[in-house]
Amino acid sequence: MQITIQRHDAGAADARKPVYQQIAEQVSRAIGAGELRAGDKLPTIRALAGQLGVNRDTVALAYDALARERLVETTVGRGTFVRQATPRARPQRAAPPLSPLVDRLLDFERARPDYAARDGAVPLHSLIPDPSLYPLKAFRRSLNRVLDEGGTELLSYGGHQGSAALRDVIAERLRGHDVDTGAEQLVLCQGASQGMSLAMRLYAEPGDWVAVEEPTYHNVLGVLVGLGLRPAPVPMTDDGPDLEVLERTLARPEVRLFYTMPSFHNPLGTTTSLAHRRALLDIAARLGKPVIEDGFEMDLRYDGREVPPLAALDTSGVVVHLFSFSKSLFPGVRIGSICARGRAVDGLLALKYTTDLSGVLVLQAAVADFVRRGGYDRHLANLRGRLRERRDVLLAALEEHMPQGTRWTRPEGGYQVWVDLPEDIDSRALLREAENAGVMFSPGHQFHHDGRPSTGLRLTTALADSDEIRRGIEILARLVSTQLAARAPRVARDTSIHV
Amino acid sequence: MQITIQRHDAGAADARKPVYQQIAEQVSRAIGAGELRAGDKLPTIRALAGQLGVNRDTVALAYDALARERLVETTVGRGTFVRQATPRARPQRAAPPLSPLVDRLLDFERARPDYAARDGAVPLHSLIPDPSLYPLKAFRRSLNRVLDEGGTELLSYGGHQGSAALRDVIAERLRGHDVDTGAEQLVLCQGASQGMSLAMRLYAEPGDWVAVEEPTYHNVLGVLVGLGLRPAPVPMTDDGPDLEVLERTLARPEVRLFYTMPSFHNPLGTTTSLAHRRALLDIAARLGKPVIEDGFEMDLRYDGREVPPLAALDTSGVVVHLFSFSKSLFPGVRIGSICARGRAVDGLLALKYTTDLSGVLVLQAAVADFVRRGGYDRHLANLRGRLRERRDVLLAALEEHMPQGTRWTRPEGGYQVWVDLPEDIDSRALLREAENAGVMFSPGHQFHHDGRPSTGLRLTTALADSDEIRRGIEILARLVSTQLAARAPRVARDTSIHV
Repeated sequence: MQITIQRHDAGAADARKPVYQQIAEQVSRAIGAGELRAGDKLPTIRALAGQLGVNRDTVALAYDALARERLVETTVGRGTFVRQATPRARPQRAAPPLSPLVDRLLDFERARPDYAARDGAVPLHSLIPDPSLYPLKAFRRSLNRVLDEGGTELLSYGGHQGSAALRDVIAERLRGHDVDTGAEQLVLCQGASQGMSLAMRLYAEPGDWVAVEEPTYHNVLGVLVGLGLRPAPVPMTDDGPDLEVLERTLARPEVRLFYTMPSFHNPLGTTTSLAHRRALLDIAARLGKPVIEDGFEMDLRYDGREVPPLAALDTSGVVVHLFSFSKSLFPGVRIGSICARGRAVDGLLALKYTTDLSGVLVLQAAVADFVRRGGYDRHLANLRGRLRERRDVLLAALEEHMPQGTRWTRPEGGYQVWVDLPEDIDSRALLREAENAGVMFSPGHQFHHDGRPSTGLRLTTALADSDEIRRGIEILARLVSTQLAARAPRVARDTSIHV
Repeated sequence: MQITIQRHDAGAADARKPVYQQIAEQVSRAIGAGELRAGDKLPTIRALAGQLGVNRDTVALAYDALARERLVETTVGRGTFVRQATPRARPQRAAPPLSPLVDRLLDFERARPDYAARDGAVPLHSLIPDPSLYPLKAFRRSLNRVLDEGGTELLSYGGHQGSAALRDVIAERLRGHDVDTGAEQLVLCQGASQGMSLAMRLYAEPGDWVAVEEPTYHNVLGVLVGLGLRPAPVPMTDDGPDLEVLERTLARPEVRLFYTMPSFHNPLGTTTSLAHRRALLDIAARLGKPVIEDGFEMDLRYDGREVPPLAALDTSGVVVHLFSFSKSLFPGVRIGSICARGRAVDGLLALKYTTDLSGVLVLQAAVADFVRRGGYDRHLANLRGRLRERRDVLLAALEEHMPQGTRWTRPEGGYQVWVDLPEDIDSRALLREAENAGVMFSPGHQFHHDGRPSTGLRLTTALADSDEIRRGIEILARLVSTQLAARAPRVARDTSIHV
């Protein structure tokens, strides 16, 4: 059988199916037509990915989808085979319908970019911290040490608030940023992702609205859809969210809270000034609306001067602060914290309890040990150095290669740099070309609440090292320059007609 | 200062405040009145608990609540002290209101029993598996082995579906129970608790109704409140949920799904027959309503013959099956799985993604290794033996000591035994006496959707060993007998008046 992939073209942007789905459907049709028969072996994931010039994950997704339809089955070490038609009767009735909310969520998820890069493409799209930098050995010592000391008790439920030792450690670090807090005001959670979801549920019910920055972290938009909440966008200026729009938005009674990333914004990479933070808090306090401050990269400043988190400036008790170890230690630990006050803590505990009972106590204890013994700060010193170096390389490469009219941000911490392309180049359309040319980035439309096209794109320094970054930017710059060159005559012709 | 505890009395059952709150309020008042001053040390948790005859956890909760109000602070190793009034201005405005849904959840949580046992009371209320039985050493070898082999990649995000190795292992075990499934149809989650919440969200939106057994696991009711869902109770008979009521209930369009525990029911301990399972599935399939089957103790059968899970009997694709390692390995691993079909799997993946991104890959890999090497089955063989022994001791003690008219269930697996007291004795009222006398149990009202009084109570064999179980039942039986003896004359008097 022959598998072909329909690549993106500008005219049919929304009709285009994800690559994995195209593959799955063609295999499915081949089975239906008898081209492939029970027992036939499909190409290996590696072989098919190579042949189609797509990422292996894409082929793996396709095979998973086929397995889910009971059309193929995979045997570890042997491969993927077309299944014998099952002797059990196929369902006579349609499966029960999913909730409309889940249907909306699936629609939303389908609109995510379907990265289909060739192997070896420079991963400037990824926010997964580089595994080669994880402090595996030292962390493992902490893990085994707490198991020696804590024994089986660490394998029991952790309580819904989470390890007191780790809450102590995080509270102490937050106090180092002038946040007036204590272990009793912290609730541990599965990374800032869960923290975000719990904090939103604390104040907003399905049908309510949530003010979000535009652009904002795309998963925030997904969380909103999943919870039945609606985004009220507040455009970002050069110094944080537009305060006039923010005030107007938060004044609407159906808007329940504001979600913001004042430091190392995702996707912009920018940091809001102290004066802007104070003005923002004043608005929120005046209107009595809570502010969720996502400090997911707060430990990753490598340049400039610390600006106190909103939680440190908050005298009205409106701020709920999220922290996470995912970007600064490693994501697989799945540990973050939510810092709140008074009844908000009780509410968070009740929500955590009814969501998944508790986190993983033994990992929480291991992180507490790792931080206490200085392992985390040593790791941070190393990581910040690398991130600064990679940012410098990235900015220098942009400066050297990008055509005139391109603008970009200059982060003082974290992984994100935002690039704004000249002359209305749609970054989503550019992505297909870029993937084929060997560089990946995150197109800007997915950071918009309505998914409208964007000339912006997010680059990260998470997975790519300095050499890869240089190579990636050279490729990207060449593509943009080519587009501009192709455009110029057309603009000239248009002009000549109209004059 | 003098702290006193208002114990439960029948007349003011609902007005009674939790013990920890009573303690916190008295300390708070003492600080307000100047009886306690900045820098004063509070009694240690151990000392105050001993003095008041309550559990240390209760005092710890009280001190936490005070710390949250910024009235006291705890320094590890030194103790808990009254705080200096903070120089920072106190909030001038009220904190933002929590969502009405969270308020309802907090009300619900307050209705939970506030266990205030003396130290040393027999814990027949706990569903935390006995830590002395956790296979710490063998599991730790698996954990270190996968870290050796998998390295830093195991510390990255696990993907929202979770470790393929562990999904393979669980799928294989489910196939051993005749469930026709594969790794691609499983989504890993943080224990059955998270599985339950995700599975409910898959089919039901806030405002919808969910059919639940009555009595049912009290956390199910909490999950419903937290998600804005409403319980539609289906009474349990001697052989599972009443099928007539179930049919009537599921026929209501606003009732979206049915949550059931056919094996080793919590709190009843009972197992539904094969015929009843088939009839139940027939109703659900005919009405097109999904069934969430909670198999949280499915690996804990120690007696009788296996009855296939609903998921094995389901020919219509209505069953979503939950499995968990919490009760059969240890809870702190926080790993369970959801087994579904077709689009339901996509929906679960999207929900998982927007809830907390992914689970803890390194622990998932460690459990896969542990199971593959036979460690889990060896552990289960040992655990089942212990549980069988404890159940036999419990049933024998009930038989020997409980007064006539008491009835109880005879589980074939898991930890729960349900006891029904004679002559309308309210188990909630009995709990206060029992705690003082040295035995704890779970009063039945909390397993009712409306919290109405119950003559039932749940006993468990999770934390108490055989000797403790014998002692606990002797105490319980004595209390019940005393109540019956005290009642008899009153009944006689009442009778004489009315005749």
